[in-house]
Formats: sequence, structure tokens, C-alpha cells
Amino acid sequence: MSTGAAPRGRRPGAPDTRAAILAAARTSFADKGFAGTTIRGVAGEAGVDAALVHHYFGTKDDLFLAAMELPVDPRQVIGPVVDGGVDGAGERLLRAFLALWDDPEVSPVLVGFVRSVLQPGGERLLTEGFLPVVLLPVGEALGLDHPEVRMPLLMSQVAGLIVTRYLVRLEPIASLPADAVVATYAPVLQHYLTADLPDLLR
Amino acid sequence: MSTGAAPRGRRPGAPDTRAAILAAARTSFADKGFAGTTIRGVAGEAGVDAALVHHYFGTKDDLFLAAMELPVDPRQVIGPVVDGGVDGAGERLLRAFLALWDDPEVSPVLVGFVRSVLQPGGERLLTEGFLPVVLLPVGEALGLDHPEVRMPLLMSQVAGLIVTRYLVRLEPIASLPADAVVATYAPVLQHYLTADLPDLLR
Repeated sequence: MSTGAAPRGRRPGAPDTRAAILAAARTSFADKGFAGTTIRGVAGEAGVDAALVHHYFGTKDDLFLAAMELPVDPRQVIGPVVDGGVDGAGERLLRAFLALWDDPEVSPVLVGFVRSVLQPGGERLLTEGFLPVVLLPVGEALGLDHPEVRMPLLMSQVAGLIVTRYLVRLEPIASLPADAVVATYAPVLQHYLTADLPDLLR
Repeated sequence: MSTGAAPRGRRPGAPDTRAAILAAARTSFADKGFAGTTIRGVAGEAGVDAALVHHYFGTKDDLFLAAMELPVDPRQVIGPVVDGGVDGAGERLLRAFLALWDDPEVSPVLVGFVRSVLQPGGERLLTEGFLPVVLLPVGEALGLDHPEVRMPLLMSQVAGLIVTRYLVRLEPIASLPADAVVATYAPVLQHYLTADLPDLLR
């Protein structure tokens, strides 16, 4: 999407129109959650036409990801993970995760995002945002049975890895080379993706 | 330890002496970590004799646990887990954990503790406190090889369970009955306790 195209709406050309839309989107996602946010509502708050929001940011999913200010679009990172099929998907997911989280330029941004998710009220960024926009589609694309159970289980080990390796910096986890992290955790992630689910979960 | 015994020290009988010691201890554990904190230093900050700190609170481990204001002494909860030996220890640990965390009176206190651990700088409560005082002794008492690796790995899945079930309240994990949590996670915890470690971790 080119920002050089002439934008439509009440405030065409205003240099901070994009910023105003993003600010309104952030407020709405935080206050109303992902499901309660509409492009029309965000446009209204920002004082622009809904068409301009679509023009700048695309779908509501795109707007959500832009509002999170992640340094990457996680859906692009996830593509190769899905393309390889379910065999080895745990390891490929983990390597894609580590490529971002172990990058010293990207990691602080991600830590900041996680800290805001962990604030009281911030959980909707995960439960109503990241989970349905990024994580569940991965499980569905992999053809998992019960992706709505398996992806949260996988998320629970990834969350623990984030907390111990990047937030709390618990040793030896914090200092493990990426290959050791993969050797340790990929089997557990794969277990959540493909092992028989306990009857109590189905 | 009876609080009816006549306390010794410069401020005997002062009703808030215990509170002053706890406040000084909390500041010291937060600023200097567990290893950098001494009973003598805490006593000095609180304006009392070191003997009085020992009299009220026992060892530095005891003082640390009192300063955390946990509603229970985790070492008492852990006893039966250890006594059963390493077979099934993952499940017993998890059931002891759930008995506390699923208790509606205890859970908010524990959530508050975890939120303070996750604050920048708060990680020493875990890395220099809870880990060496509570968790590593469990691994040693169970006779694990490499408890200094296995207990942090176990902690990483427990941390993810805490984040998803109690902080972020990610479904379906947040609403699973305790038996379903055990069926799901006990095998993973047992894996971290007893499965072969990757060569890269030894």
C-alpha cells in the first residue's frame, strides 16, 4: 500500500492523519477489545472517513497489527512455518520466534508489548487480538484438530519461555544458545500441536 | 516461633518493630537481591539488633519468605511433593500449585506477587529468592540430576500456566477444571524433571 496515493477523507494530506488513526485504534482496542472495535468507530474518533482508514491500513486485522507497533508483521514470519505442514511445525514456530526475540533490536519492542499485555486490562491485546489474528489462523492452516485448544496450550509454554528468557532472565534459560532452546522446547511445542489431547479437553 | 516471648533489642515491645524489620527486609531484597541482603544489614536499617531479627523471623530464608507476604510458607506445601519421590512428582507439584492458585482467597495475593516479579527489577525476587529458597531445594531433595537446569525448565512451563490461566485468563486454559490442568501439564512437568536432557544443556 503506497502512502504516496492521494488520501481521501476530511483531513487529506494532514501529516499526522495516520498517527491520529493509530491513536484512535489503540484506544479502541484497549477499551473495547478487538471484537468491539470497528473501522467506522476508529474513523469517527480520528475524525476521518472510514474509507481513509481502509486506504491506509487495510482490514481490521491489519489495523490491529499496525496499532500494536510490532517491528514485523507476524503473519509474514508465520508463512514458512505453515507451509512446511504439521511435521516439525513446533520447531519451525520456535525458530521463527527466536529469530525475532533474540534479535537485540527487536527484542525490547516485543518485551514492551508483553509488559503491556500483562498490565491489568492489557490481556485483550492477546485474547482478542494476537490469538485470533495470528495464532489461531496458524493452527487452522496447519490443519490441527482442536486448534482452539492446542494453540493456547502452545502459547502457554511460549509465554513461559518469554517470561523466563526475556523478562525475568532466569538462568540457564536466559543464556541458552538458540539451538539449545530448540532442543529443549520444540518437542514440548510439537506435543501440544499433535499429541492426543486428554479427554477432559475435548 | 512464639511472638509472646519477650523480644530482645533496642526497641523491645514496640508494636511495629516487626513491621519495621519487614519493611527494611523488603527494601533490601529489592535493592540488593537475596544474596546481597544480610540479617545484620536489615537490622541496621530497621534500627534493631540482629538478634531480634533472628528471634522474630529465624533464618534469612525465613525472613525472605515473610517479606514476600505469601499467604503460605511454600516449603510446607512442598514437603509432601518431595516425600513421594521422583515418580509422579510433576503431578504432585502441580496439584500443590493448583490448591493454592485456584483458592479464591490466595490467588489474588499470588497474582500480586507475580506482577511485582515481572516489574523491571523485580526479577530478583524469583532468581535470587524463590528459586534458591524454594525451588532448587525441591529438585535436590528429589535427587534430580542437574536440578539447576531442570527446575528452571519446569518453572518456565509453570510461569506460562500462571500467565495464561491467572493473569491473562486465556481460554480454554483459564476455565479448565483442575483435573484437566493436571492431565494436560503434569506429563510436561514430569518430562522436565526426568527426561533425558539435550546434550546442549548438560
